[in-house]
Amino acid sequence: MKAVMKACAAPGLELRDVPDPVPADDEVILEVKATSLCGTDHHIYRWDEWAQKRIRPPRVLGHEMYGEIAATGRSVTTVRTGDRVAAESHVTCGKCFQCRTGNAHVCKNYTILGIDRDGSFARYVSLPEKVLWKTADEIPAELACMQEPLGNSVHAVLTEDVSGHTVLVTGCGPTGLFAIAVARTAGAGSIIATDVSDYRLGLARQLGATLAFNPEKIDPKIIEEHTDGQGVDTALEMSGHPSAVHLCFRYVKNAGRVCLFGIPRAPIPIDIPNEIIFKGIRVHGITGRRLFDTWYRLAGLFRAGLDIRPVVTHTFPLQEFGKGFDLIDHAQCGKVVLIP
Amino acid sequence: MKAVMKACAAPGLELRDVPDPVPADDEVILEVKATSLCGTDHHIYRWDEWAQKRIRPPRVLGHEMYGEIAATGRSVTTVRTGDRVAAESHVTCGKCFQCRTGNAHVCKNYTILGIDRDGSFARYVSLPEKVLWKTADEIPAELACMQEPLGNSVHAVLTEDVSGHTVLVTGCGPTGLFAIAVARTAGAGSIIATDVSDYRLGLARQLGATLAFNPEKIDPKIIEEHTDGQGVDTALEMSGHPSAVHLCFRYVKNAGRVCLFGIPRAPIPIDIPNEIIFKGIRVHGITGRRLFDTWYRLAGLFRAGLDIRPVVTHTFPLQEFGKGFDLIDHAQCGKVVLIP
Amino acid sequence: MKAVMKACAAPGLELRDVPDPVPADDEVILEVKATSLCGTDHHIYRWDEWAQKRIRPPRVLGHEMYGEIAATGRSVTTVRTGDRVAAESHVTCGKCFQCRTGNAHVCKNYTILGIDRDGSFARYVSLPEKVLWKTADEIPAELACMQEPLGNSVHAVLTEDVSGHTVLVTGCGPTGLFAIAVARTAGAGSIIATDVSDYRLGLARQLGATLAFNPEKIDPKIIEEHTDGQGVDTALEMSGHPSAVHLCFRYVKNAGRVCLFGIPRAPIPIDIPNEIIFKGIRVHGITGRRLFDTWYRLAGLFRAGLDIRPVVTHTFPLQEFGKGFDLIDHAQCGKVVLIP
Amino acid sequence: MKAVMKACAAPGLELRDVPDPVPADDEVILEVKATSLCGTDHHIYRWDEWAQKRIRPPRVLGHEMYGEIAATGRSVTTVRTGDRVAAESHVTCGKCFQCRTGNAHVCKNYTILGIDRDGSFARYVSLPEKVLWKTADEIPAELACMQEPLGNSVHAVLTEDVSGHTVLVTGCGPTGLFAIAVARTAGAGSIIATDVSDYRLGLARQLGATLAFNPEKIDPKIIEEHTDGQGVDTALEMSGHPSAVHLCFRYVKNAGRVCLFGIPRAPIPIDIPNEIIFKGIRVHGITGRRLFDTWYRLAGLFRAGLDIRPVVTHTFPLQEFGKGFDLIDHAQCGKVVLIP
Repeated sequence: MKAVMKACAAPGLELRDVPDPVPADDEVILEVKATSLCGTDHHIYRWDEWAQKRIRPPRVLGHEMYGEIAATGRSVTTVRTGDRVAAESHVTCGKCFQCRTGNAHVCKNYTILGIDRDGSFARYVSLPEKVLWKTADEIPAELACMQEPLGNSVHAVLTEDVSGHTVLVTGCGPTGLFAIAVARTAGAGSIIATDVSDYRLGLARQLGATLAFNPEKIDPKIIEEHTDGQGVDTALEMSGHPSAVHLCFRYVKNAGRVCLFGIPRAPIPIDIPNEIIFKGIRVHGITGRRLFDTWYRLAGLFRAGLDIRPVVTHTFPLQEFGKGFDLIDHAQCGKVVLIP
Repeated sequence: MKAVMKACAAPGLELRDVPDPVPADDEVILEVKATSLCGTDHHIYRWDEWAQKRIRPPRVLGHEMYGEIAATGRSVTTVRTGDRVAAESHVTCGKCFQCRTGNAHVCKNYTILGIDRDGSFARYVSLPEKVLWKTADEIPAELACMQEPLGNSVHAVLTEDVSGHTVLVTGCGPTGLFAIAVARTAGAGSIIATDVSDYRLGLARQLGATLAFNPEKIDPKIIEEHTDGQGVDTALEMSGHPSAVHLCFRYVKNAGRVCLFGIPRAPIPIDIPNEIIFKGIRVHGITGRRLFDTWYRLAGLFRAGLDIRPVVTHTFPLQEFGKGFDLIDHAQCGKVVLIP
Repeated sequence: MKAVMKACAAPGLELRDVPDPVPADDEVILEVKATSLCGTDHHIYRWDEWAQKRIRPPRVLGHEMYGEIAATGRSVTTVRTGDRVAAESHVTCGKCFQCRTGNAHVCKNYTILGIDRDGSFARYVSLPEKVLWKTADEIPAELACMQEPLGNSVHAVLTEDVSGHTVLVTGCGPTGLFAIAVARTAGAGSIIATDVSDYRLGLARQLGATLAFNPEKIDPKIIEEHTDGQGVDTALEMSGHPSAVHLCFRYVKNAGRVCLFGIPRAPIPIDIPNEIIFKGIRVHGITGRRLFDTWYRLAGLFRAGLDIRPVVTHTFPLQEFGKGFDLIDHAQCGKVVLIP
Repeated sequence: MKAVMKACAAPGLELRDVPDPVPADDEVILEVKATSLCGTDHHIYRWDEWAQKRIRPPRVLGHEMYGEIAATGRSVTTVRTGDRVAAESHVTCGKCFQCRTGNAHVCKNYTILGIDRDGSFARYVSLPEKVLWKTADEIPAELACMQEPLGNSVHAVLTEDVSGHTVLVTGCGPTGLFAIAVARTAGAGSIIATDVSDYRLGLARQLGATLAFNPEKIDPKIIEEHTDGQGVDTALEMSGHPSAVHLCFRYVKNAGRVCLFGIPRAPIPIDIPNEIIFKGIRVHGITGRRLFDTWYRLAGLFRAGLDIRPVVTHTFPLQEFGKGFDLIDHAQCGKVVLIP
């Protein structure tokens, strides 16, 4: 089959012929119907410092996927050929303290699809049974494949209840946009979004932001006006930019919540007394998806009307993956989906 | 002024002339724009056993209200003449353990507007400053006056997060209908409603129930089909009927939540091992509104699009209060609003 | 080897010769050092209605155990021969909604050691790897084998924090006594215990109850005096007696917590408005142990000084199991331990 | 009466004659039996930059106090002359969002005793009724006056349950020492304490630390050995030192909790991905005491045996306050108590 892979330790990716995968006893073979590009894939594509340390070529990339089960290993019991599934990308150990106490999303020994084993940028991919997530047939393939990153946002937004609360989302890349959509569906009273790209602010409004602005052009004090002078109940940092981190700490109200999801490139000096202590806030580090609470919540949110379609701005055949990475380079896209 | 009151210890209510109220230092005078009928008022109207014990005539009834502030006492600082407000009906002591630890809704010494002091079935009513709730001007008077009972439902639904979860509501009287609307706005994945009245099941569908049925006519097993065989995450008992209580315990999933709000007339035999223990569920007794979390959440839910208009089925001038009680007698109404 | 078993469908148990067990790939063989009697074993011994429905003879009993690993199956990785372990008695499916969302203690498909497969009333028992719990060597065998029932009490007490709170424990059988010891170690401010047996009330005082009394002889109003007129923050019902259930609901304070663990024999009429709703309390159904939070907490409580030794009132060689059941018949014991 | 006060805008404090205070209607006069020195008092004594901005002389200092009520204003109902009370030092507004939603400890408008109004370094002090805390007679005056700072530690430790959990406390000044004592009483499984002062590490061991070490002399990796390689469930930062903040983030386990209470002097660069996000931890900013939960918990912890006596290392007559500040200068003390 054809697969998009990091063939050797250098920038770029290549479309190569590789053997079709064969399932182990506790695995299935997924015929990939849609797979989407993640910022992580972009790091690997560019072959930055992080990628050079983390990736051992050759490796087929891709960890956001949806498809149909084409074959099952001997001990598989919960799915069968023809089932349509997405996949949790973190393969957890099941034996560490975190796995044994309901916190498998921070398993000490997890591996990642498309990074530690071959991924979904191909016609077929082998997957452990335990990462599969049966997905309602009504959800189209190009949305279903995005459940993995969407799950990050569900995890972030619903760490605590947002219904009737005010929410700030800093950063309107795909996970920020997803967070807006989730907060909208969950009944947030106001959703304020910030980004420096007008293109992305437009998407934010489409997804349900009640106020979306560029903090380099408009004084963020507008947040106070928009919240009766209170600041927000919940601030979700989805960008990784230092100024956005400070914006969250500044405009969250006393006793409020900040969720940190975006990955800053370097340490950020935090004024701990004024940004955290005297405000009496809670700060949550958000990584992955709660296994499998987040996936169940996500299925329920779709039934409640969650609409993430505007986030998919581009769809290409698998072999045109290069176009997708170009768009990410220029931040002129929401989510890019590849069809094998 | 004219006021609808229990003039003496007998069934019925009377429209009488009473002196206009004068505010104490920490009180305001509200000019009532709209006030709604509660089941409690109906008990007092019928003068049942509970009412005979609880009420000391003469008493002006009415504890669900909205209006404009007409005068303020000397020490009042948070509102002024012309402000439009609703009122929390429970006047709490501020000094008991519950009040001092964030649980004033179960204050040991609270009194109730329209029961322990004169209420809102009149042109004017005096109110302590601390029960006032400023209400956004966009909300029409006949909806704004219902925030008190709506708050009961907000309290019940949002005891825990429902976004993406399945919800069962037993009993589609006004608080059940409000619960459906709140769960819908908060992004519940499915909302199943039960009642024995076709009229009310129709209202339930209008407010957002995804399945509404009469359990005397349709086998409640349909709940399992509607929830992938799992039962519901949350069951809200809003009727007080024994069969509805058992329905909640039966169809809540293991590790789920039951909220009890409806008032049964007599003790109900509970099969504690099978209905509670082996299921590992949580049961919450729900009374009043969390002070003032519930009111803030409620304001946010309105901004999120909460629509309770279909619950107001009838509006009458104050003096036609008798028509309202007749409708309640026959369960042929949602909420009845009186305009002084 | 010798094993104590229900050989046929009739009252009593027999000591019989059975073949030594052999481990499957994911199992170990435990050499049992100590195993204790549970109320459930007593039901099976007496062969009551429940037992007749639930048990399929022949079956070796015993689900509270501690020992040394004598052999391991091929795929076992987390323990090795010589390790000293106790066992979680519930073997969960790992695939149902509850197992996948951190609530495996209410797994829809679990099986139980000593009930659905042969148990620990024998020299050896085979066990799935995933139920094993490595136990600190300092803990003597006759205490270590009781971690399973002790875990029930840890689960009940620590559903919410008790440090600095007042606690009521109704029923001073072994799990009630364990609950007292756990609440004491966790820093409960006052621990009030009730039972009808003077013998057990004496044990309750030994384990840390600050007030222990027989509610048939002393007016329970003493609870109010002992709690500044407030009632208790947390009431733990460990007996299953209707009067004890009502005692919990009566003396828990408004906004407090009731945990139900004791199994009543028949439905109990509950005055839902006065016992639950108007008090605004939370009721938790408690079953099993949280997997594996409860076990980790338990290990920490031992390090914090948890002392359950007074609960072990009798120790016999395995073949004298009959003496243990006689003691349980007459409620003249705490916990009975058997040494194979 | 004699009072220790900041008489003018310059370093130091003076003992001066001032008029006896007279209570307003909602106030009482406390005859001070014991009052203790806080780090804040030391800042004011030294007249550092913060103090110069915050304090408007003349001002009687002192916000940690205990005494007997000598007189009461007209509207006071909850205490009477002769009652023995401590005082919450934060006088909250009761009207802001935080006050109305159970988070008065982060009131937007609070004032502080001994800073914004005259405090307890005197024979008498006037206090609003609502800050009073009746204290059990068994607790000696020199311990009872420390309930205010002890409450900070109760708040920090019990933000979440520590029973059976492992706890790290960085910084063994008074609030760190209190935190150790509270965690010990609440049944923490292990309590690890760090400080750079051998004197304070000795106090830490006396109060219940199971491991106390100087991280400048001993490799903190010892924390891993002491926690089965897991790190701690809860890390409490009580020092404000950058290295201690990083120690907390480094040794808290994935999905664990960090509480920040110590006030750093300058922003601290935080490696947000590795210290917070990928660990999936919660960070709580801790300020003040939860009103009045913390005080009730504290009373219960005393009943459970909380022993903070070793923290009081020095007691002086009021006029010898200078000796106390000298000791603080050299970090050669736990808590210093003054007796007026």
